Amino acid sequence: MRKLNVAMIGGGFMGKAHSIAYAGMPMFFWPAPAVPYRRTLVDVTDELAKNAAERYGFEKWSSDWRSVVEDPEVDIIDIVTPNDSHAEIAIAAAQNGKHIMCEKPLARTAEESKRMLDAVKAAGVKHMVAFNYRRTPAIALAKKYIEEGALGKILNFRGTYLQDWSADPNSPLSWRFQKSIAGSGALGDIGTHVIDMARYLVGDISEVMAMAKTWIKERPVQSGGLDKLGTVKASGNVEKSAVDVDDEISTLLRFENGAVGSLEATRNAWGRNNYITFEIHGEKGSVFFNYERRDELQVCFSSDPEDRRGFRTVYTGPAHPYGGALWPIPALGIGYTETKIVEAHDFIDAIVNDKEVSPNFEDGYRIAVISDAILASAEADKWVKTK
Amino acid sequence: MRKLNVAMIGGGFMGKAHSIAYAGMPMFFWPAPAVPYRRTLVDVTDELAKNAAERYGFEKWSSDWRSVVEDPEVDIIDIVTPNDSHAEIAIAAAQNGKHIMCEKPLARTAEESKRMLDAVKAAGVKHMVAFNYRRTPAIALAKKYIEEGALGKILNFRGTYLQDWSADPNSPLSWRFQKSIAGSGALGDIGTHVIDMARYLVGDISEVMAMAKTWIKERPVQSGGLDKLGTVKASGNVEKSAVDVDDEISTLLRFENGAVGSLEATRNAWGRNNYITFEIHGEKGSVFFNYERRDELQVCFSSDPEDRRGFRTVYTGPAHPYGGALWPIPALGIGYTETKIVEAHDFIDAIVNDKEVSPNFEDGYRIAVISDAILASAEADKWVKTK
Amino acid sequence: MRKLNVAMIGGGFMGKAHSIAYAGMPMFFWPAPAVPYRRTLVDVTDELAKNAAERYGFEKWSSDWRSVVEDPEVDIIDIVTPNDSHAEIAIAAAQNGKHIMCEKPLARTAEESKRMLDAVKAAGVKHMVAFNYRRTPAIALAKKYIEEGALGKILNFRGTYLQDWSADPNSPLSWRFQKSIAGSGALGDIGTHVIDMARYLVGDISEVMAMAKTWIKERPVQSGGLDKLGTVKASGNVEKSAVDVDDEISTLLRFENGAVGSLEATRNAWGRNNYITFEIHGEKGSVFFNYERRDELQVCFSSDPEDRRGFRTVYTGPAHPYGGALWPIPALGIGYTETKIVEAHDFIDAIVNDKEVSPNFEDGYRIAVISDAILASAEADKWVKTK
Amino acid sequence: MRKLNVAMIGGGFMGKAHSIAYAGMPMFFWPAPAVPYRRTLVDVTDELAKNAAERYGFEKWSSDWRSVVEDPEVDIIDIVTPNDSHAEIAIAAAQNGKHIMCEKPLARTAEESKRMLDAVKAAGVKHMVAFNYRRTPAIALAKKYIEEGALGKILNFRGTYLQDWSADPNSPLSWRFQKSIAGSGALGDIGTHVIDMARYLVGDISEVMAMAKTWIKERPVQSGGLDKLGTVKASGNVEKSAVDVDDEISTLLRFENGAVGSLEATRNAWGRNNYITFEIHGEKGSVFFNYERRDELQVCFSSDPEDRRGFRTVYTGPAHPYGGALWPIPALGIGYTETKIVEAHDFIDAIVNDKEVSPNFEDGYRIAVISDAILASAEADKWVKTK
Repeated sequence: MRKLNVAMIGGGFMGKAHSIAYAGMPMFFWPAPAVPYRRTLVDVTDELAKNAAERYGFEKWSSDWRSVVEDPEVDIIDIVTPNDSHAEIAIAAAQNGKHIMCEKPLARTAEESKRMLDAVKAAGVKHMVAFNYRRTPAIALAKKYIEEGALGKILNFRGTYLQDWSADPNSPLSWRFQKSIAGSGALGDIGTHVIDMARYLVGDISEVMAMAKTWIKERPVQSGGLDKLGTVKASGNVEKSAVDVDDEISTLLRFENGAVGSLEATRNAWGRNNYITFEIHGEKGSVFFNYERRDELQVCFSSDPEDRRGFRTVYTGPAHPYGGALWPIPALGIGYTETKIVEAHDFIDAIVNDKEVSPNFEDGYRIAVISDAILASAEADKWVKTK
Repeated sequence: MRKLNVAMIGGGFMGKAHSIAYAGMPMFFWPAPAVPYRRTLVDVTDELAKNAAERYGFEKWSSDWRSVVEDPEVDIIDIVTPNDSHAEIAIAAAQNGKHIMCEKPLARTAEESKRMLDAVKAAGVKHMVAFNYRRTPAIALAKKYIEEGALGKILNFRGTYLQDWSADPNSPLSWRFQKSIAGSGALGDIGTHVIDMARYLVGDISEVMAMAKTWIKERPVQSGGLDKLGTVKASGNVEKSAVDVDDEISTLLRFENGAVGSLEATRNAWGRNNYITFEIHGEKGSVFFNYERRDELQVCFSSDPEDRRGFRTVYTGPAHPYGGALWPIPALGIGYTETKIVEAHDFIDAIVNDKEVSPNFEDGYRIAVISDAILASAEADKWVKTK
Repeated sequence: MRKLNVAMIGGGFMGKAHSIAYAGMPMFFWPAPAVPYRRTLVDVTDELAKNAAERYGFEKWSSDWRSVVEDPEVDIIDIVTPNDSHAEIAIAAAQNGKHIMCEKPLARTAEESKRMLDAVKAAGVKHMVAFNYRRTPAIALAKKYIEEGALGKILNFRGTYLQDWSADPNSPLSWRFQKSIAGSGALGDIGTHVIDMARYLVGDISEVMAMAKTWIKERPVQSGGLDKLGTVKASGNVEKSAVDVDDEISTLLRFENGAVGSLEATRNAWGRNNYITFEIHGEKGSVFFNYERRDELQVCFSSDPEDRRGFRTVYTGPAHPYGGALWPIPALGIGYTETKIVEAHDFIDAIVNDKEVSPNFEDGYRIAVISDAILASAEADKWVKTK
Repeated sequence: MRKLNVAMIGGGFMGKAHSIAYAGMPMFFWPAPAVPYRRTLVDVTDELAKNAAERYGFEKWSSDWRSVVEDPEVDIIDIVTPNDSHAEIAIAAAQNGKHIMCEKPLARTAEESKRMLDAVKAAGVKHMVAFNYRRTPAIALAKKYIEEGALGKILNFRGTYLQDWSADPNSPLSWRFQKSIAGSGALGDIGTHVIDMARYLVGDISEVMAMAKTWIKERPVQSGGLDKLGTVKASGNVEKSAVDVDDEISTLLRFENGAVGSLEATRNAWGRNNYITFEIHGEKGSVFFNYERRDELQVCFSSDPEDRRGFRTVYTGPAHPYGGALWPIPALGIGYTETKIVEAHDFIDAIVNDKEVSPNFEDGYRIAVISDAILASAEADKWVKTK
């Protein structure tokens, strides 16, 4: 069976997620299109890289990503670093003919994203952006219903991504709150997942009208680590520094196909932990999804008799998208790992069988354009077109 | 015990709701501030009026609302007619010194509403607009938490009112789809309830940015009755006529106090029957409410220890607003009737004890101004101020 | 239109519920079979009776129930007293040819219940026991599905009634905790509602196997009032007295038709306020109901395609049982009042049109037999037959 | 870092679950107590074994489990075969000094289980039964609350495990429906998980009173594979054979500490896919859990002020049990994989650091005793003691 050598740049929590995906993919999708082989892990120091390589089951390690990107043994470069290094690494990888998996958002701006897209197109390599949530089977099931026409013409889309891990003003100023590294705040970090779902399910977005807020204007400077996702709260007299990105975005949307919608992303929603939801109304039915209860999709069909019509709570299993590869009955348990396994499979499959895969850098670029338009709209207080 | 004579103008389903409220109010609030006495029911013909009077327990009936408004025996005029007659009746009632309960929305436009407000102020009578939903105990509980500061400074508000009774294009063209009678569509009929809640819970709205849609552009002409709420669907070749009001509104909101928000109202949400929801995020907590499960409020307090923090599902009962007057334990059952009983009480109490009551015509007027701004914003495709 | 004079014995919270039902019934069911007229209210003293009569809209009052039961002007005796007086009043009422509405449970024991049943049968009057919950439209919808065969042969039933208003050991010793008055505890007060639902939906129960517990063995003696439903907690050094009834019942059930089931009723379920639920599995489908969210029924049909099968959340409205008489769209709001209005209608309808009505004293008696069997089973620690 | 060589006997879907657990464990728990190394996979033929070894990442394969059990290089024997071979393999493994992970239930009967327990005790090896569900963080959180005393004295437990993958009579007769292989039906396959949770959370069970049913009395004989979990339905004229195990169990429980409870397990609950739930009422609070929404635990504390008391929906994350090793924020996604990773960790940790681990064979034996008592009770129609 064919093997593909993966080099992963970055060793944080996303490294964990990608590593178990590579390890688990052939177990779930068998026969696998190819077996991904964890070959080299890169982190900022040799010590960090060695430790992460042992932890995540990589054979080699390095603190020099450039040499790894040039390594002829490597087939795939997987980028799980903060946003500011995506472009440089990806462009170098493309120039060396590597297939590329890149964590989301693709880059800090549309301009950076465009250069990445140009590079992979020029190189003819496969490319993917890790908006993994859309690979939740229940979301793919919503897509299936829509493609089958079971919901009729889509009228609207309402998407949210609400969190509270940094709703406390004493949660630290990780790189996610710094524009120079992250590009934007709640928008880029979480809002882009919803933009990806909106495009996946409804179609491309043509115009946006947004408000942006930075409710928490300064946060404690974080020592010893860039990204702790707020798990360690500061107390006492700590040095604080300014947050220069948004922590809440509210947006109206217009889709190319005439549907309308809204997008809300916030880091200040106490009680909402990873509240990725969408509700879509079509002429013939509706769907509702909440990632916090991700094994299920709610769907209502107008064709049901009136005395037995209502949202159906469908738990996904073998009869639903990706289900044959996952667990033998519904509700056995879809977790973050499973979404990443499906993502890894579809990427490897695209490489081996020369298929299109989505979301790719083209999608990532479009999402960046829409994100930039959202920030521009919030700044100008008016509708901004995305094309 | 003091009695107040009520004359009710209109005998449709709202007549039912108001009638049981008057009958039941003293049973729930005892000793009652006064006992409302169902004296005269007015409908468009004597026959309809007589029938409705018998049904709703009124002593007299009439098809001449003007004479009833002038009847010196009448203390209260209760207006439950379609929107186009609110202003004329209310102004006449005020000029005759009657206290006025008026169904929502107050009128078709801000201009009409202003004339009504001027009339009641000039007359010095008590006035109320029947946005009854806010009298659901769980909503009043949200208000209490906010007033106690338990949620901290309010950051945002997201409100929805989604229905599907007219999502079928063959549901009839009742007056609710005709601008000359209704003023607007989903906005005035249901969206205004959410505006009322937003103002009640967060504060007044200073600026709006809206999209309006009329997805279903024509409907069957309805024979034999103005308002069947879509329960009888047309089939076969029926005459259709144009809908000239919105059936979906999506709006961004800015509040005077700096909070932001959104409002969505649609008649095309298959599976959502009376889906009035709001979610509010504050610096110290959040609330979520869904009228379809109206006995409960969900609230999260940031001050809870992290290992036991999450939304609490609080069922309202005697320990919560209005609870002492309602049922002896939580979840015994709050229905539409109970919201109307509380409303009737607060109105009678305001009359007898010369209290302020809300939402009154001032509120109704402000809601009309905001509604007009929403339509103007959708038309102009830009933010519109409401003051 | 025909009028029926009602005399109500008892003026507590159930008096409120029955009074608004009589007032509201013709408003909802129109033309009404007859208009119930609130004629005489009886309470233990003239002062209490006069006060309750004013509150609940009765024309007369009395502290002598015997004379009222004999009053030839009275058509209906409505018994809303504690359980120990049901039999005596009902038998006297029957002997005077009155139709009888009696609060549940019918009496303290099967023996008492049998005497009541014999009396009404001998008198040929109409009789009903106020197990109102089954008149929730969503429960009647479950019944409809079952009768239509949509769930296939019924395999099992799981019912619960969980409360917490007296989970605090300092909530007072009302009559509901005294065997001499109440007959039993959680079983008679709340468990009987579930037995009623089980019989209504599945069929009669042939055998029971139970455990009974009295977790809270003593409670503060209550001053000034028999039944406060625990809203006033005692504090400090208060006199306590023994509880001699159960506060938790767990029971296995066998139905005559071969189905099996279970029943759980407890007063010690913190967080469960009025948690009346049932889940029924049939060969072709399932239903789930939770009264705390009573506007909805959940139903799953095995015949749905596997990729869109799941519980449907159906909100009841005009297309569902009783819906035509209630509110014009689903989820406008079914409360305790609405269940009592339907109950009052069906009773009046049975009187006027000489129909069978259920649950009647025959049902009440069977429920008492089953209840006695549950207590006997718990005592003997073995299965007990109910016939 | 220390390595432990694992040999896995069996290559079905449980093999997948255990394999990804071994691969992922060090990624999540780092530094890991030891790194499990996937050394040998055993299946019934060489071809099947080779294929499964490649799929699940094992270095070697074999169709001779006895030689593998004797392999001195092997540290751990992981048994994921049908129930009828657990005892023979485990006893041989113990006699060869191997640590043993065994899928649940431990064996077909208490007698078999006892022999396995005796063997591991005699050998002094570590042993674990793979009741993985209790390693869901939300269940461990319930345990933590109980141990902290936050719920007070436990009064009762209600557990369910409801499925529908074989509710269709045309789903095939896999080994799970054959007593000679499985031992029992719904009881052993799914009910035992609930018994495990009951013992984990409340304490040991002293007495049971049960009903057992086999609603579907025959099923199509399955060709080409023992265990398809009903995903392929038969159609047309297929050969059917008798089911000789239960498909529904309803049981009352008495716990050693005085608490009472119930257990329901069924394979005939249309719409319930993997509906593992428990509700526990204590003197000071309650918890409710539903595995289908496994990221969350519902908990109610009586000490909350009455106006803000209700079930809290707590999503588990770093602040909750196992959370530090899993994902950085709550609701990122606990799936079946994550429960197995935690299980693998605790087993490896017990081996390396010579700790007690639970559920072990002692627990598995007790569960088998209780299971046998349930079947005996259902047979004899009376309470049966478990000790």
